[in-house]
Amino acid sequence: MNNFRYHAYTDIRFGKGQVKCLTELVAPYGKNVLMVYGGGSIKKNGLYQQVKELLSDFNVYELPGVEPNPKIESVRTGVALCKDKNIDVVLAVGGGSTIDAAKVIAGGATYDGDPWDLVTDNKKIGKVLPIVTILTLAATGSEMNKNAVISNMETNEKLGTSSHDFIPQASICDPEYLYSLPAVQTAAGTADIMSHIFEQYFQKETGAYITDRYSESVLKTCIKYCPIALKEPDNYEARANLMWASTQALNSILSCGKGGAWTCHPIEHELSAYYDITHGVGLAIVTPRWMRYILSDATVDRFCEYGKNVWDITAEDKYECANMAIDATEKFFKDCGIPMTLTEIGIDDSKIDIMAEDTIKYNAMDRAYVALDKEDVKKILMACL
Amino acid sequence: MNNFRYHAYTDIRFGKGQVKCLTELVAPYGKNVLMVYGGGSIKKNGLYQQVKELLSDFNVYELPGVEPNPKIESVRTGVALCKDKNIDVVLAVGGGSTIDAAKVIAGGATYDGDPWDLVTDNKKIGKVLPIVTILTLAATGSEMNKNAVISNMETNEKLGTSSHDFIPQASICDPEYLYSLPAVQTAAGTADIMSHIFEQYFQKETGAYITDRYSESVLKTCIKYCPIALKEPDNYEARANLMWASTQALNSILSCGKGGAWTCHPIEHELSAYYDITHGVGLAIVTPRWMRYILSDATVDRFCEYGKNVWDITAEDKYECANMAIDATEKFFKDCGIPMTLTEIGIDDSKIDIMAEDTIKYNAMDRAYVALDKEDVKKILMACL
Repeated sequence: MNNFRYHAYTDIRFGKGQVKCLTELVAPYGKNVLMVYGGGSIKKNGLYQQVKELLSDFNVYELPGVEPNPKIESVRTGVALCKDKNIDVVLAVGGGSTIDAAKVIAGGATYDGDPWDLVTDNKKIGKVLPIVTILTLAATGSEMNKNAVISNMETNEKLGTSSHDFIPQASICDPEYLYSLPAVQTAAGTADIMSHIFEQYFQKETGAYITDRYSESVLKTCIKYCPIALKEPDNYEARANLMWASTQALNSILSCGKGGAWTCHPIEHELSAYYDITHGVGLAIVTPRWMRYILSDATVDRFCEYGKNVWDITAEDKYECANMAIDATEKFFKDCGIPMTLTEIGIDDSKIDIMAEDTIKYNAMDRAYVALDKEDVKKILMACL
Repeated sequence: MNNFRYHAYTDIRFGKGQVKCLTELVAPYGKNVLMVYGGGSIKKNGLYQQVKELLSDFNVYELPGVEPNPKIESVRTGVALCKDKNIDVVLAVGGGSTIDAAKVIAGGATYDGDPWDLVTDNKKIGKVLPIVTILTLAATGSEMNKNAVISNMETNEKLGTSSHDFIPQASICDPEYLYSLPAVQTAAGTADIMSHIFEQYFQKETGAYITDRYSESVLKTCIKYCPIALKEPDNYEARANLMWASTQALNSILSCGKGGAWTCHPIEHELSAYYDITHGVGLAIVTPRWMRYILSDATVDRFCEYGKNVWDITAEDKYECANMAIDATEKFFKDCGIPMTLTEIGIDDSKIDIMAEDTIKYNAMDRAYVALDKEDVKKILMACL
């Protein structure tokens, strides 16, 4: 087990009606609040109005319209508002995109240059305004972690950045907000959660037994409850388990004692950077192809362990067991209604070369579970067509 | 899944040599440090000297000699030191007993009356000095939670208290400190960890699927690694997994979405209050008897789930499966070398009546997984003789 730091200090308020805690969670930081949100679904479901009422004693400024795969332009607008209105605390109401944008806004508020600098070089992140979130989508885990991913469509870059101070001070997680999600978002969100787990579970370090069992627990939760949530969108138990799974999958608990770099996320980030596709859909397409590509004598035991502990596969032959596990993973995504080829979502082979090149350029793919070079990434992407 | 708050804000530094972080972890709180520790094993293994060197720029005052089942007298001495020396931060170096004492000392430092008041009535806990810990035993989880248990041998009371502000600001967890533990402490510590999990796992709420799978993960970790640590005291992987298991078992992650009161801990606290026995030994003795006592049509499914998921029991008959799981639990403790009857540790039936009465008096046993009255507790204790 590798040495690690675990410091996920977010004050989580989980469950029905927890928005009632909002006032007490925001109050310690000041009166000037920047409320960041997305496309307006919170106006339809009444959450917008509720937040405004709960914060009626505060000065609430608004940044609406944060996009999926949030764009640096929105961040720049938010930073300008922070500086202009002397903002004390940034409140993100939405999913991972909104929260990620809020993080870079909170860092940009005290930075003199262009906030894109904080995305390309996280050493430039200084003081960060406190962040509070109300989560409305189960996917990225951004509500309890230090990460943010921002896109710059001018340069076709979708890059991750992070700071310990990006971890939200508090997050309200009410599973009932998930009831109204379109099926595709429930499915893509679950694919994102599962990919976060795979990126940490498939690593060279094998002595972190407790962490691996946790990872399998969260995977089993996704596999059990995503189909239920798709059939019964207002099944509370399903939504609650998926919502907590999304937080657990990427609050660093599943990497305790483990190391190494990620694989499918870097590859998918290039798909989103060039085609602005739904992140979870891209991950679902890439994941089983990546698994098959790296299956070898060096990895078969791990895939077999995955098959036995997550999918209850009992095949004696190791390769049979591993392949059954990979097939089960692909079939699961397909059964959840996710398009499972790039062709289906309108992507051909024309940019595979540049996407593979950028994957290697921006990420430490040599430190991944199985090190990949540009040719490897190209082959994986070709298999996704 | 019940609503919950999860806010385990401790900054954990886990692994070999992490004591090097001590200076940076203590520095934010001030110069006057009260160092609380136990029986002197830290002087033998060099940790005492290391701490003093790392804190050479601080004013370090000392409270040595904190007992297993820490006594209120030690707490009173510590509180007096805090007030006299204007202490800024309490540093606990030891196991759960030392950390528990440090917590009530940190609360007592700002309280005008007798610190025993803070044990009998946690509403009297006001401001708490910041607490930093260096953990040397894997058992209580006190390094990342809000609980403290203090004994008053004059009144034969061993009582728990808690405050959100008792959660340590930072904890250094180096598994190498466990190498020199006597076998009985390794075994008793593991029994304590497993009991913490049982108290949360066996609850009426069944919708917290992800939490239950986590609980099973930590139980499997204990079952796998305790025997290894007993055979090879310096097996790092075993010690590391057990140490992280102890923190996970009681930092509230395993009660997320679940509710209800505890059973075996309240009963064992009376054994320790009257006989000052090792907490983990008492728990190991009580646990299988409690399990058998409450096995019924209402609980058999849960015990069977425990058997299948933790012990890989495949028996078709539910009661057979449940009984095999309980037998496996008892055998596990026995194989770890724990004396498994009260008679073996010198306890007869003379105080069973008063211990049962006190169990009911001090605890909400009516809200436990299976509600117990005084007669039930007596019967369980009689079965332990």
